[in-house]
Amino acid sequence: MSREQRNKLDEMLRRPNPAKPQTVEEMRANFAAMMATMLVPAGVRTTPTTIGNRPGVIVDPAQDTRPGIILYFHGGSYIMGSPYTAMSLTANLVDKTGIRSVSLDYRLAPEHPFPAALEDALAAYRELLDNGAQASSIAFAGDSAGGGIAVSTCLMARDAGLPMPAAVVTFSPGLDKTHSGASMDNKMGLDPFFTREGFALTDEMYLAGQDPNHELVSPARFADLTGFPPILLQVGTNELLLDDSTQLADRARAAGVDVILDVTADVPHVFQAFTGMLDEADQALDRAALFITQHLKC
Amino acid sequence: MSREQRNKLDEMLRRPNPAKPQTVEEMRANFAAMMATMLVPAGVRTTPTTIGNRPGVIVDPAQDTRPGIILYFHGGSYIMGSPYTAMSLTANLVDKTGIRSVSLDYRLAPEHPFPAALEDALAAYRELLDNGAQASSIAFAGDSAGGGIAVSTCLMARDAGLPMPAAVVTFSPGLDKTHSGASMDNKMGLDPFFTREGFALTDEMYLAGQDPNHELVSPARFADLTGFPPILLQVGTNELLLDDSTQLADRARAAGVDVILDVTADVPHVFQAFTGMLDEADQALDRAALFITQHLKC
Repeated sequence: MSREQRNKLDEMLRRPNPAKPQTVEEMRANFAAMMATMLVPAGVRTTPTTIGNRPGVIVDPAQDTRPGIILYFHGGSYIMGSPYTAMSLTANLVDKTGIRSVSLDYRLAPEHPFPAALEDALAAYRELLDNGAQASSIAFAGDSAGGGIAVSTCLMARDAGLPMPAAVVTFSPGLDKTHSGASMDNKMGLDPFFTREGFALTDEMYLAGQDPNHELVSPARFADLTGFPPILLQVGTNELLLDDSTQLADRARAAGVDVILDVTADVPHVFQAFTGMLDEADQALDRAALFITQHLKC
Repeated sequence: MSREQRNKLDEMLRRPNPAKPQTVEEMRANFAAMMATMLVPAGVRTTPTTIGNRPGVIVDPAQDTRPGIILYFHGGSYIMGSPYTAMSLTANLVDKTGIRSVSLDYRLAPEHPFPAALEDALAAYRELLDNGAQASSIAFAGDSAGGGIAVSTCLMARDAGLPMPAAVVTFSPGLDKTHSGASMDNKMGLDPFFTREGFALTDEMYLAGQDPNHELVSPARFADLTGFPPILLQVGTNELLLDDSTQLADRARAAGVDVILDVTADVPHVFQAFTGMLDEADQALDRAALFITQHLKC
């Protein structure tokens, strides 16, 4: 990135964490305010919908829609966020591929702990299939916690006997709630977003006393990925979550699954949201768009 | 890949290794005959040249040439091959990017053991720079042994105080002549091309008694990649050389270098040469072309 981009990024990331603990409502409001600063490409159209008994947002490209569906899962540590907080990411994928997205407003913790979000995601996928969409024309995509949902929903779909989607795209996914990766320690202080203490707080809300040693909670450590479609993992070198991705990539290779581990140096968590500000963001989204169009068969 | 593609591929790979040892000249002739079956895109133009006191081949796209240069290093275990045996790979990169390539006919072992090939590669890069090319407009690319040359030439360039090229692209690179990766054992029998015995034969010719524990011979084990440009590593899950790439990716991440570890299941060594026959080949080359165009600044 240029010096100008670096300065702008540093400024955006410099907001100090509040000294006193936030309520869940404060966390949600602050997260929504931060994500509202991200750029959405012009001309993309959004339409509220329902899918799998949950709200969702259909995102259509400005130009003619190509066949296929990107089922998108937003991030926010399972306790924050909505299709609108991830709209920059979703809309850029739509804009760059010309493919419609359906972004799911899954239930959040602590009101609805694990496995509520995953149940909503599986129900959404099942509804797409029930409505006649071919699995080979559907890609799962998600950022942060939503990347974890994308992977775990694949596991649930496989084990339910559903066909696999055509591809899985994840941006800085959270894939290990046992936080066993070396990056949890050796990236401490480099990652402007996360700390072990922060994870402990949000994990407690999401798990509500349930065991983190579960393949749907920590697929990077426990999941057998046999039968998975091609996976794209994009992550930054400075992230506490880096090894969530390297571990999942190891497991994918071991299971004979196509996997691209796409690591960018010196960028923050879900840096793809900084599209228009950070060259690396636009380039990473272009690679993700190519990956989706290569694997969707419509 | 389709069943038809799989059958065709199996047939191509089924040729039994000759029972009796081959001479170097026989190995070179057989390698050239095998590679001559690979498809070269129509309209690409080749022009003999000299570069760094070695022969080379300029490869130009059918359409107008975009700025930039892909400095290509062919494969062949350091003892076989030429710009012509890698022409399918080189010409497809040229065709897909619209960027000129210069493919180097470096000196081969056993007549010219390590470090002759690397000296030729560094001399070629130096000549491009001396002739006014900007390093930021040059990508290194190579397959198999040529992938190793691409990485090691970067190391030599950095240590000689030369500017780094803009990107490094490698197809199934050989990066560890100590052969320490787990894939050397757990992919045995799955890889239709390589065996430990085969490597021992060609390594002996390349090293001529020199130590494999050297960063220019085994960069995946010994090189500090600090300051490297973005690296793309493409490799198949069934390759003995798989962990040459996973280890280099580990080292790149540790050095804060952009690195994409792009692994395709169930494809042979340098599967990108099967373009036009294997969907995975064309798709991988499209990803490599995007990677080059994203990083070249002209």
